Amino acid sequence: MSLLITTPHTSKYENWREAFAQIAPDLKVVCGAEQASEEVTYVLTWHPPKGLFQSLPNLRAVFSMGAGVDHITSDPSLPNVPLIRQRDAGMGTQMSEYALYAALHYQRDFDIVRLNQQSQTWAPFVSGVRPRLNIGILGLGTLGSVVANALVQNGFPVSGWSRSKKEVDGVTSYSGEGELGDFLAQTELLLCLLPDTEQTRGMVNQNLLQQLPKGAVLVNVARGALVNDDELLQAIDSGHLRGAMLDVFHIEPLPTEHRFWSHPNIVVTPHVAAETVYAASAQQVSLEIQRMEAGLPPTEVVDPSRGY
Amino acid sequence: MSLLITTPHTSKYENWREAFAQIAPDLKVVCGAEQASEEVTYVLTWHPPKGLFQSLPNLRAVFSMGAGVDHITSDPSLPNVPLIRQRDAGMGTQMSEYALYAALHYQRDFDIVRLNQQSQTWAPFVSGVRPRLNIGILGLGTLGSVVANALVQNGFPVSGWSRSKKEVDGVTSYSGEGELGDFLAQTELLLCLLPDTEQTRGMVNQNLLQQLPKGAVLVNVARGALVNDDELLQAIDSGHLRGAMLDVFHIEPLPTEHRFWSHPNIVVTPHVAAETVYAASAQQVSLEIQRMEAGLPPTEVVDPSRGY
Repeated sequence: MSLLITTPHTSKYENWREAFAQIAPDLKVVCGAEQASEEVTYVLTWHPPKGLFQSLPNLRAVFSMGAGVDHITSDPSLPNVPLIRQRDAGMGTQMSEYALYAALHYQRDFDIVRLNQQSQTWAPFVSGVRPRLNIGILGLGTLGSVVANALVQNGFPVSGWSRSKKEVDGVTSYSGEGELGDFLAQTELLLCLLPDTEQTRGMVNQNLLQQLPKGAVLVNVARGALVNDDELLQAIDSGHLRGAMLDVFHIEPLPTEHRFWSHPNIVVTPHVAAETVYAASAQQVSLEIQRMEAGLPPTEVVDPSRGY
Repeated sequence: MSLLITTPHTSKYENWREAFAQIAPDLKVVCGAEQASEEVTYVLTWHPPKGLFQSLPNLRAVFSMGAGVDHITSDPSLPNVPLIRQRDAGMGTQMSEYALYAALHYQRDFDIVRLNQQSQTWAPFVSGVRPRLNIGILGLGTLGSVVANALVQNGFPVSGWSRSKKEVDGVTSYSGEGELGDFLAQTELLLCLLPDTEQTRGMVNQNLLQQLPKGAVLVNVARGALVNDDELLQAIDSGHLRGAMLDVFHIEPLPTEHRFWSHPNIVVTPHVAAETVYAASAQQVSLEIQRMEAGLPPTEVVDPSRGY
């Protein structure tokens, strides 16, 4: 029995080894796809190399390094074993920080102030005292609920939309296709936290963006594939949207020639909204392995057909 | 008996009139220095025109539109009547928003990300997971305590320095000249909230900045006169300081040729951190007037010799 860790960020192997050495010293950990063997029973991975699973005949479960699993389910050779995602692994706090920063950025007109600084324009009283922006969280799951709480605690009115109705203190919950329009109509800052699935891919398109009120903002910290880039740019350039803060993209690193980089109303951050915390993640993975080795089902299993 | 309101922002007169009409409909309110007369018993002002007080023989008290009173005490014709400042007047919340934004800006490396976007540089994992920045509030008065609470609630370790020891929940309090060095040595983000007095003018100079740890940040939301601009620029250009976010300046509007505008490590905002909220302010002013008309002393009197 051993755990195989693979990620394109190979410089992180040492961090993962250390975290598991601390938390589960008896667990054998190997790093890199070239370590695939009959001995490997568990895989912890981020963007596994295609075909990896074919060289792992004794696989019992696959763990994603993140909250999303699209980077694993896109491999058709994924065998029928439990696919387990990170519950929080320290990401909730980081995602909340990013979301709160984005909310304050637009609440207090730091986007306008930033452009004004470039032209040495002193334009006070743009901020004034205004009601707080209505934040709408598209994807009110585990992370979404943590983020919602942080925003509510800081005085922002928060609503959320998800496939099924959720109960989160102080948050207005919308659900299903039927309530998406109402949700969007009252959202001034749309925070995208949906998983990347067949249903959600390209969902943030012209049709959706036009249902936001004029002057609304998009913040995407989920997956680049959710957004139709051209239609987002069009919505901003037409003046319907005020701007966007984007952490994730169809292709990462974002290609140098992409219009997002130089757009004055778009903030580009390099997929840093929430990085998995090694210790918290290793803790969660080792507890799930203990459960499975004791014959119990793992707790954070993803439904591969749903994608989350 | 009447209240005279004067401010260089004459477009605000209508807001003030409305606020007082709502809150104290019986109070006679006149706007603009040209309305000075024997009838005026109270003045509410921001940067009063020099000599104003000479045309007000029956003055009973002067109210500042802000938390600071330096713009009033600088007029030698100020008579010996109570000088009253805004207690909070809605500024605590706004100042907290600004401070929290600044804290998250540097905590999550948005300063670096912003420069990287300009050069289309994708440099992820600059943020990572780090301990929260130690925030040091220079000037732990009424506003400082409100801001400290907001930062503590969002997980930032906060300390404060003031002339006399203060008790604020969850905040380490330093006081007096003797403890200033210890306070600065542990401060990673220095948030300046001191009043502008003879003692504080120019206090944020090379000597003070050098006592901050390397890589520290300055955020000034108090008064421009506290800072020695050249020495601040030198501290940043030498690499000792990481940067600064500045809302207040020696001369406002900040002159077009000032180096702050174009410095890559300085964020310039046009004195918008906290604007007095008309309703809250009118409420406070009318209560103080009621007290005085009833023969009671006003509550928020400034000691003109101390300056706060």
